[in-house]
Amino acid sequence: MKRALISVSDKTGIVDFAKALQEADFEIVSTGGTKRALEEAGVQVVGISEVTNFPEILDGRVKTLHPAIHGGLLANREKEAHREALHEHSIAPIDLVVVNLYPFKETIKKKGVEDADAIENIDIGGPAMLRAAAKNHAHVAVVTDPGDYSQVLEEARGNGLRFDTRRHLAAKAFRHTAAYDALVADYMTDEVFPETLTLTYEKKQALRYGENPHQGASFYQHPLPAVTSLAAAEQLHGKELSYNNINDSNAAFALVSEFSDTKAAVAVKHTNPCGVGIGDTLPRAFEEAYAADPVSIFGGIVAVNDRVDADTAEQLANIFLEVVIAPDYSRNALDILQKKKNIRLLKVDMGGDRNVPHALTSVSGGMLVQEDDVKGLADTDVKVATKRAPTSEEWRRLEFAWRVVKHVKSNAIVLTKGNRTIGVGAGQMNRVGAAEITIAQAQSDAEGSMLASDAFFPMKDTMEVAVKAGVTAVIQPGGSKRDQESIDVADDAGITMVFTGMRHFRHA
Amino acid sequence: MKRALISVSDKTGIVDFAKALQEADFEIVSTGGTKRALEEAGVQVVGISEVTNFPEILDGRVKTLHPAIHGGLLANREKEAHREALHEHSIAPIDLVVVNLYPFKETIKKKGVEDADAIENIDIGGPAMLRAAAKNHAHVAVVTDPGDYSQVLEEARGNGLRFDTRRHLAAKAFRHTAAYDALVADYMTDEVFPETLTLTYEKKQALRYGENPHQGASFYQHPLPAVTSLAAAEQLHGKELSYNNINDSNAAFALVSEFSDTKAAVAVKHTNPCGVGIGDTLPRAFEEAYAADPVSIFGGIVAVNDRVDADTAEQLANIFLEVVIAPDYSRNALDILQKKKNIRLLKVDMGGDRNVPHALTSVSGGMLVQEDDVKGLADTDVKVATKRAPTSEEWRRLEFAWRVVKHVKSNAIVLTKGNRTIGVGAGQMNRVGAAEITIAQAQSDAEGSMLASDAFFPMKDTMEVAVKAGVTAVIQPGGSKRDQESIDVADDAGITMVFTGMRHFRHA
Repeated sequence: MKRALISVSDKTGIVDFAKALQEADFEIVSTGGTKRALEEAGVQVVGISEVTNFPEILDGRVKTLHPAIHGGLLANREKEAHREALHEHSIAPIDLVVVNLYPFKETIKKKGVEDADAIENIDIGGPAMLRAAAKNHAHVAVVTDPGDYSQVLEEARGNGLRFDTRRHLAAKAFRHTAAYDALVADYMTDEVFPETLTLTYEKKQALRYGENPHQGASFYQHPLPAVTSLAAAEQLHGKELSYNNINDSNAAFALVSEFSDTKAAVAVKHTNPCGVGIGDTLPRAFEEAYAADPVSIFGGIVAVNDRVDADTAEQLANIFLEVVIAPDYSRNALDILQKKKNIRLLKVDMGGDRNVPHALTSVSGGMLVQEDDVKGLADTDVKVATKRAPTSEEWRRLEFAWRVVKHVKSNAIVLTKGNRTIGVGAGQMNRVGAAEITIAQAQSDAEGSMLASDAFFPMKDTMEVAVKAGVTAVIQPGGSKRDQESIDVADDAGITMVFTGMRHFRHA
Repeated sequence: MKRALISVSDKTGIVDFAKALQEADFEIVSTGGTKRALEEAGVQVVGISEVTNFPEILDGRVKTLHPAIHGGLLANREKEAHREALHEHSIAPIDLVVVNLYPFKETIKKKGVEDADAIENIDIGGPAMLRAAAKNHAHVAVVTDPGDYSQVLEEARGNGLRFDTRRHLAAKAFRHTAAYDALVADYMTDEVFPETLTLTYEKKQALRYGENPHQGASFYQHPLPAVTSLAAAEQLHGKELSYNNINDSNAAFALVSEFSDTKAAVAVKHTNPCGVGIGDTLPRAFEEAYAADPVSIFGGIVAVNDRVDADTAEQLANIFLEVVIAPDYSRNALDILQKKKNIRLLKVDMGGDRNVPHALTSVSGGMLVQEDDVKGLADTDVKVATKRAPTSEEWRRLEFAWRVVKHVKSNAIVLTKGNRTIGVGAGQMNRVGAAEITIAQAQSDAEGSMLASDAFFPMKDTMEVAVKAGVTAVIQPGGSKRDQESIDVADDAGITMVFTGMRHFRHA
């Protein structure tokens, strides 16, 4: 006869599994709620206390932390001395452990959870059993996931569990305890950059491939993704999101989130905005974003910060888009857009908690971790650098340009006119090059435009290019040793320029 | 009298700490090697078996997994029932736990480690005590890090440990067990995209700031970074690396690693290559990389794939560079470069194990995980699409261009001539725009150049621009519905074009 120890918080499928094990000649050892559930279903169960000759104490905090259990889990049955020790202390070996843990995640997910409640739901005995059984997978099988019951049963009924299966289950058990403790640590502290950083994610979606078809990929989510997050988005229509869809959607969502005081629409290609528009109404904002660059938007991602109405939906439906992201859609808008088979519609809450403070970028052998760039003009002192100060209209326009340039890959230059971008110069290796690209895009529209730069002008050349193109107002961080040369160029041309004192490099 | 349980694998500072605890009226409970070490130093120690009335069994696998220990750790001393249970079972409460774990990482780090040795070094009793004490931090202090001994001692000598200290230590204990189990899971399995992904890193360097001064940041490394990795680099000279230095260095290191069959030099700005050169000697390769774009390289990162000699060092010293990355430096080269106070010199092994299969990109509420893009022309069937096939000279040049374009942010177009890049169009939202930028950079040099595109041409416009500029050979994935239109344009102009069948998008 073999022996199975069963102690589960998630009781899915446990009764059938235990019955089948019993039929396969397993003695079932169990405790607490699991024992009651199994007995009610007619399974014959040996109580933990009968095994340990020791009562459950401290409200169940100490039940299984006992040599009679852990000796049974950890003995190396190939060692004579281990077998003798079990015999001497009347410890029966345990062959199968079926344990899942107190619902810590589900507990802290509850609104307004008390700290004492969270702490009580940190499982101690369960992880100890899982880890002991997993360590001793040469002799013991460990099951944490009800999804594995059927395979385990099949092998148990046959010649016993294969080594590969036990090894796989052991790895899964350690992944389970690692994830559990990472979440507990995360709950218990606000440290942003601790001495060890252990991040845990749950698979949300296996992806067909990554950035390219020859790269495997998956999309993982935080165990508790914030309400206002892409991972919490609801997909209302369309095919599965691809890796690049998600990456682009993330960029579009971040940029559109900058605009809480006006309706805004953002089109993104290859993680850079190609058109951004604002307006009093959403159809108007989208018209601006579209007009900003009617070519690049093709095959792009559009994010808007207001409920999509039928008018906007008609406009969106006129072009080929991969993804639309919005806080909501009217019934009519959905009818219009769902007719398009290739579009994916995401509904993302835009007004809730975002608390995702880290941006992570893997590098060879490690990980760069930084706080997200969540600051803006409200967090800094903006100064007028030139003789001429911006008019109130120019201030508004410059603020718009600044919000956009923050979300363009560095080196970045953005030109805007009215309520739209007219040129976006992204990812350039030198600044004047970015300005030239942007101005070339804008063509004659550049006359009377606003220019935003994500970092300072190291030399006056960018300013000279801007003057030549007819730019009338500039916003940039300032702080170059040679700022005065750029200021002089601006003053000579009657251009106004403001310094934000805050840089917005962005590379990934 | 209070009671401290001490069981440490890393015995740094433990004797002095235990002595001081004894003087502060702690009874010391200990086991195994720790007990011996303390007793030899004259500390009075109660053995675990005296506490449990149970011997250590199974070669020490079961020592502390006992109600007499875990009852002492887990009792809520504010609860009458808990106090009574302790009394009834003669269990003394434990106030302080000092535990660090079997050296699993150090064990698997050893070359040719046996699986049995690794498995034996998975600690079971230690994490159980750490976790129990950490859960019960309302009453118990848990110490895993010798660096915390002095603060703990100070508070223990005074009014006892403060709640904030105990909470902080508890979080640290859970971080420790989470990291430990994540590494065990990682060791036990090759699964790339498991159902839960728990990643663990160790802080390598606190950074002054992130991409921008208003963002906090740190550089973390894998617990066991590969020999050939940026995290394992040795810094021979210069100030601390910044966030952007590391990010750019990563891009430069990845690109230079493409060239194992020739000397190569790569200059990077804002994570994109601005100049790449190859040659029979390193000075020659660097000359090419420099000539490729003598403007953008200013303030950049240079990576080379061969030992830096004095000649190359002289050239490098002539320009302002943030970082140089090389597998080695000659004594003379170091003398030359170390005179420059602002340059950082990194020595990175380039011929060893790289095994870092994941690229991670955080998105709102989650993480995109994909396999690195490690494939190249050797992994795909390259086909000639045009009437004219490349000459052997053109094949070599096209291969060079292809290796570079793989490392340029999408949409990417690269122009090369001879052994250098002459234009790099990075991060563009439409492909013909990328071509135009690249050609504008190359100017009249574009005549007779090679063009590489990281993805296919959706329309013939890119090809038309290329023909007009004088490009004579093109390499691109192919696969557009409208490939034939581009082929026709090429054929009409006598240009040769090859299709790789493999795309190389890269966004971060």
